[in-house]
Amino acid sequence: MNDRACSELQAKINRTIPLSEAMGYRITELDTCHITVSAPLAPNINIHGTGFAGSLYALGILTAWGLCAHLIEHAGIDANLVVAQANIRYRLPIQADILCRSEITDAEAAAFIEGLTAKGRSRIVVGVAIGDGPAASIEATMHASLKNQQ
Amino acid sequence: MNDRACSELQAKINRTIPLSEAMGYRITELDTCHITVSAPLAPNINIHGTGFAGSLYALGILTAWGLCAHLIEHAGIDANLVVAQANIRYRLPIQADILCRSEITDAEAAAFIEGLTAKGRSRIVVGVAIGDGPAASIEATMHASLKNQQ
Repeated sequence: MNDRACSELQAKINRTIPLSEAMGYRITELDTCHITVSAPLAPNINIHGTGFAGSLYALGILTAWGLCAHLIEHAGIDANLVVAQANIRYRLPIQADILCRSEITDAEAAAFIEGLTAKGRSRIVVGVAIGDGPAASIEATMHASLKNQQ
Repeated sequence: MNDRACSELQAKINRTIPLSEAMGYRITELDTCHITVSAPLAPNINIHGTGFAGSLYALGILTAWGLCAHLIEHAGIDANLVVAQANIRYRLPIQADILCRSEITDAEAAAFIEGLTAKGRSRIVVGVAIGDGPAASIEATMHASLKNQQ
């Protein structure tokens, strides 16, 4: 884990995405193939007093985005990174702090960065597990493009 | 449009889902087959200064949830309503106030309520259009169950 990269990415996300601050988004672990994020339940409850479907998605998508943004940064590349599409499934209510985990393989990370360097554009599908079970899971397709090619 | 139902649902959502208040979620039109929601861009921006993917989803899913909750309330039924799964596609960045629209047919509304009354459980698939184009769209599957059967 890279503590400095972790706190820098955390600060960048909280500074530029106000909703991340409102949700209490915190990166707790970060490397080029793995990220964990936590958030308190209180600002993210729904009418049933459990995790709000919209918060679970927003925290989860910022988990996937954070991992890919770190991967690009770590490779020394200046690129835009956006979510193209995502699917979320909810299985169980969440009644405690919200924990999101995302992991990709070394090969997936390498292919994503190689595509970006070689063609100026790249895509990656990232899974996010939210809560125990997991209680919810996201599959998100992220698109990256070099800034100087836009 | 039912102004009283609109303001009551608005107040209920803002009171019980803190993130709805943080996003500036406002119901602007509501009947049993149609809802429109708006939110200012400022609390919902991303690192590019456009609509944050997580906010667009959370506002959109609260649009679908609001429509179904109103339909259940209008039928005089006491039921729990949750999101089972959803898909979102992002096509264009949003650079103005975020407008969400959702519409179902009379037949879909009737089948949803009839299932709930007859079997105690019901599901409905609701589409949400976000922004012009639409800039993003959600297809969400909602599950409802009578409270006294849980």
